[in-house]
Amino acid sequence: MKFIKEKIAKFNLDFRLTSGTILNNFQLVYETYGELNEKHSNAILICHALNASHHVAGISEKNQKDIGWWDNMIGSGKPIDTDKFFVICINNLGSCFGSTGPASIDHTKQKPYGSSFPVLTVEDWVRSQALLADRLEIEKFAAVVGGSLGGMQALQWSISFPERINHSVIIASTARLTAQNIAFNEIARRAIITDPLFYGGDYYSKGTYPKVGLSIARMLAHITYLSQDGMTQRFGRNLQSKETYSFSYDIDFQIESYLRYQGEKFSHSFDANSYLLITRVLDYFDPAENYAGDLTKALAGVNAKYLLISFTSDWRFPPSHSHELVSALLENELDVTYTEIKSENGHDSFLLKDDEYHQIIRSYFNQIKI
Amino acid sequence: MKFIKEKIAKFNLDFRLTSGTILNNFQLVYETYGELNEKHSNAILICHALNASHHVAGISEKNQKDIGWWDNMIGSGKPIDTDKFFVICINNLGSCFGSTGPASIDHTKQKPYGSSFPVLTVEDWVRSQALLADRLEIEKFAAVVGGSLGGMQALQWSISFPERINHSVIIASTARLTAQNIAFNEIARRAIITDPLFYGGDYYSKGTYPKVGLSIARMLAHITYLSQDGMTQRFGRNLQSKETYSFSYDIDFQIESYLRYQGEKFSHSFDANSYLLITRVLDYFDPAENYAGDLTKALAGVNAKYLLISFTSDWRFPPSHSHELVSALLENELDVTYTEIKSENGHDSFLLKDDEYHQIIRSYFNQIKI
Repeated sequence: MKFIKEKIAKFNLDFRLTSGTILNNFQLVYETYGELNEKHSNAILICHALNASHHVAGISEKNQKDIGWWDNMIGSGKPIDTDKFFVICINNLGSCFGSTGPASIDHTKQKPYGSSFPVLTVEDWVRSQALLADRLEIEKFAAVVGGSLGGMQALQWSISFPERINHSVIIASTARLTAQNIAFNEIARRAIITDPLFYGGDYYSKGTYPKVGLSIARMLAHITYLSQDGMTQRFGRNLQSKETYSFSYDIDFQIESYLRYQGEKFSHSFDANSYLLITRVLDYFDPAENYAGDLTKALAGVNAKYLLISFTSDWRFPPSHSHELVSALLENELDVTYTEIKSENGHDSFLLKDDEYHQIIRSYFNQIKI
Repeated sequence: MKFIKEKIAKFNLDFRLTSGTILNNFQLVYETYGELNEKHSNAILICHALNASHHVAGISEKNQKDIGWWDNMIGSGKPIDTDKFFVICINNLGSCFGSTGPASIDHTKQKPYGSSFPVLTVEDWVRSQALLADRLEIEKFAAVVGGSLGGMQALQWSISFPERINHSVIIASTARLTAQNIAFNEIARRAIITDPLFYGGDYYSKGTYPKVGLSIARMLAHITYLSQDGMTQRFGRNLQSKETYSFSYDIDFQIESYLRYQGEKFSHSFDANSYLLITRVLDYFDPAENYAGDLTKALAGVNAKYLLISFTSDWRFPPSHSHELVSALLENELDVTYTEIKSENGHDSFLLKDDEYHQIIRSYFNQIKI
């Protein structure tokens, strides 16, 4: 069995961010699957969402229990077939799995960036990914693909680099967050920032981290990943272990136990500053912002072919978000395929195996010319 | 102008709770509006929801800026007309506006109950309300009315005391919380309990309280009171005061400012232990629990006439919750009026003035024989 080894690309340059801040000497960690063909025309960029990493498929060399987060989608003979395509997934700048982020050492100060790490945007991510593509001599991606926040990157690629992308595959995503989406992010951030162990973002030197706040943030996010009906089917009002109520604030219901476990687990594996940063990246994404909210105008210069997929029970980014984007693309007379998959798994559906969903991706990628 | 003066009823008795715990020497604070008629047949009990108090209508004598929380519904010439009815609203046991609760002094220990205050149920509330009805010589209520958690009490009245209620008016409510509802409550409780100033519930003696946790709990609850569309219309992606993003975790969007303000305000005015307790009361409510989940069987002994109202954009207790309850009541061949009001104000709709909604209540109460 072949294990996946992560690679590191170091960039010694002044990288000017959307905010105006300059980041230098950053690194991106990434993985690749399959082989780049002679024409360099078979490269697929997978963009990850909030919690995920560059380890998108296969078994990690570093930890052989660590299967990629989209392993059901990407691999030999799978819907995104690595026998045909050369697949790349990059840990986003500002995240915490090896690419430069708030927990990384700022070499100018010989300590972690912490609160001094700049707030990024999806545009910044896409430009950093393009730098890596340059280095790998990939002039044009056959496709850029992502779910949720990954879908925002797939969209932004088609806006920022219309000449460098053939297909943009945008799954369970949106062209901008709603007030409700931002509200959930804001509460998550409040929970982290008000945790006494946050220390204004500079908790690294204290040997601690805002575990409680991050855990609450994750519990909250988790509700938005599942659907109301899916939660009812899976947990309902089932009690955890007791026959009757405890008449206390301990765990009575299975859903309480499940959420606490998810929050606890996440708080050990993710950096709180990265969580703040990435929720802000989500909030700020709005290609139509400079066009008075007119998404059609914002997409006037794009040139890719699009596949959009939404899921009926996704209430984080419901199908209506995709409809809006599809309309704006069609008004620009672009080549758009859109499908709405019936699913009770909410926003998380994009990560799960579903025959219809996978068949659509498979067919679409089979038709991509390389 | 006549001001509303609150009244206090003290109960010197052993009140056995659903949990088995005994509470004694408790008091209920309440207000009344209108006059009890000679036959004592015109009494209406209004049951309040999580955050509210007994001050349901009119201007408080204590604070003349304090208008009752349902003043648009209750008063002379209003849909629930105090020229016809004698209206009572009682601050629920365990709340924090004058009735005995966690912040009250436990006279056996000469200090606030705090963590020792027992967890209650809707049944307990209803039985405590019945004790006050006894004292006021109200054998039978013309109607018991409530929205949200208040609706649960109106339903429970018809189950616990079928002979003491003519009409049960259940608005924007449910016969039981879903896993998602419980999940939101659980996160709110985690935010409060993990606040370092919670001190295991005994923060009173420290001269402090878990302001941050309570504020986060309230921000979260507030999202569930509004609808997705309503938030979009009211706040959208509007920026608070800046022309562009701050590239920080400060307030950028109006929705962030609004939620922080709501959380902050609430944290000064509500007791954190009462918040924990009342969310648990919500979780535990499930009349069908002893009937293997069969709501029709749970309602076999009821005898009231029912008015149920739900609101289209309420995603906390969506119309489907009312549908389930209506079906169970109809299967028991009961007299049920049900209406679904089109509204974009989410769960909060039940508190707001809406012509159709108010007209339905007005017509229904006009027809109530006293």
